[in-house]
Amino acid sequence: MGAERRLLRRLQQWFPAPADARVGNGDDAAVCKNRGRDSVLCVDPVVEGQHFDKGTDLRLVGRKAVNRNLSDLAAMGAAPDYLLVSLLLPPSLGEQELDRLLLGLRDAAVRGKCHVVGGDVSSIRGPLVVTVTAIGHLVGQPLQRSACRAGDGLFVTGPIGGSRLGRHLRFLPRLQEGGWLAAQRGIGGCIDISDGLLLDLWTMLQASGGLGAELDASRVPLHPTCLRRARGNRAKALQAALGEGEDHELLFTVRRGRNLPPGGPLGARARRPIGRVLAEPGLWLVEDGVRRAVAPRGHEHHVPGS
Amino acid sequence: MGAERRLLRRLQQWFPAPADARVGNGDDAAVCKNRGRDSVLCVDPVVEGQHFDKGTDLRLVGRKAVNRNLSDLAAMGAAPDYLLVSLLLPPSLGEQELDRLLLGLRDAAVRGKCHVVGGDVSSIRGPLVVTVTAIGHLVGQPLQRSACRAGDGLFVTGPIGGSRLGRHLRFLPRLQEGGWLAAQRGIGGCIDISDGLLLDLWTMLQASGGLGAELDASRVPLHPTCLRRARGNRAKALQAALGEGEDHELLFTVRRGRNLPPGGPLGARARRPIGRVLAEPGLWLVEDGVRRAVAPRGHEHHVPGS
Repeated sequence: MGAERRLLRRLQQWFPAPADARVGNGDDAAVCKNRGRDSVLCVDPVVEGQHFDKGTDLRLVGRKAVNRNLSDLAAMGAAPDYLLVSLLLPPSLGEQELDRLLLGLRDAAVRGKCHVVGGDVSSIRGPLVVTVTAIGHLVGQPLQRSACRAGDGLFVTGPIGGSRLGRHLRFLPRLQEGGWLAAQRGIGGCIDISDGLLLDLWTMLQASGGLGAELDASRVPLHPTCLRRARGNRAKALQAALGEGEDHELLFTVRRGRNLPPGGPLGARARRPIGRVLAEPGLWLVEDGVRRAVAPRGHEHHVPGS
Repeated sequence: MGAERRLLRRLQQWFPAPADARVGNGDDAAVCKNRGRDSVLCVDPVVEGQHFDKGTDLRLVGRKAVNRNLSDLAAMGAAPDYLLVSLLLPPSLGEQELDRLLLGLRDAAVRGKCHVVGGDVSSIRGPLVVTVTAIGHLVGQPLQRSACRAGDGLFVTGPIGGSRLGRHLRFLPRLQEGGWLAAQRGIGGCIDISDGLLLDLWTMLQASGGLGAELDASRVPLHPTCLRRARGNRAKALQAALGEGEDHELLFTVRRGRNLPPGGPLGARARRPIGRVLAEPGLWLVEDGVRRAVAPRGHEHHVPGS
């Protein structure tokens, strides 16, 4: 983690946000003034061998490439408008495979009610790379990962786990949920779970000034895929799910004493807190009445120096 | 070329521009309504082994990655506001090399008066990839490659050639020139020379409904680097320069009977036409009084099916 944090610090030092930006480097997306209006901007690549295996149906890959970005917008409480797509195609890629990829990009753009307005096609002597940029607008106040406070309740929009069993290709970005949350009062921090619930929670708590959190193991919703793989052993399934990543559910907090209003896109399970934010730094898991410290496990990015 | 054109057609069919977009897929950049204002959007990658050789100072690579995109904005008559950067880092890349890359990105952003507001860092088992997205605004009317007419004079903002001798790492985007052209009357089409003067000219003429053009060989400005390499043999230097690409000068047309007004950033040489647009499709080069057809040579992108 040291090298990645050093890199992020350097990025924030060397590339300070412009004076008119509401959110600069370091959140799920940037929020910038664009001729007087706020634009929400993010970019995320999908790389063969890193984000999908060779041989995966490229229609699913195209969808994932778009949906990863729409999930980042959702985590800011933003709605997508435009997409740009940069394709790096290895020489071995066939025309029909390219068609599957384009279909997948279109599927996700149509579903997200946004448009691919441009891009670039180049070749690469290496893995297939699909880099999508998403440009959107705020629906309400921007949701930020730095807005947690001690005492906040901790919530998640849907079940986690099972991403390595194929769900990482089939998640849907929580655009409605993010937009709805941005319009409510009393919402604290928000982040999309890409690196793993524990690690993204830790990232959000760090961004909020170094807070901690306590999770109630029995309340973390688990996806059936992940429970089936663990043959119904919930404790085992939870261990896997907490550090897996690519769930792309929104992890958010609600101020103490505030309730989520009725209505909106959140299901009943997403309205029950799974834990709470603490002033004391660190992560704790409460399981069968036993409280123990847990490490911020998750997908760690290799960066130079690590 | 067949496969690339098929791909572009498919992209335009499958991803039609939204109703409120002024320029969709197929130009140097897209021009879209963003909450009522026009945004200009483009993305371009730089890939080790394709756009630069292994061992190149990554500070130059960082500059090129940004400047390629700023050149696309310049070709639309747009000014840059924001940049997003996606880095795909091979495991072998060291921390100091990464610093050089970041420095180069910053150099070009500062020079272009725009800000890196976000991005992503991931790893790749393959070549280093730097994908930059640029978001800008229009200075005047958008310059478009589809706006040529028969009878237009043909102009270029600066000397071409020598990109393979290292100039491809050191070009400067013609932002001032593009912005100035966008504010003038009587400007026709405009494109930035990335694939080669002949090929980009042909692309612009195709986009303008299938026109042709005649070039005056003696008037095409050549860069000293390229003349030196040809030991002062201008004809030989011209042959190389016309198809080389990555010059990133703007190629533009001016309506018949219109003159470029005095003042502005264009030098004296850029105010002399290098040829003219013809109703008849095809490209011709007039050299020592001899007029001969030339092929639209340049950098051809490998796409599946080609």
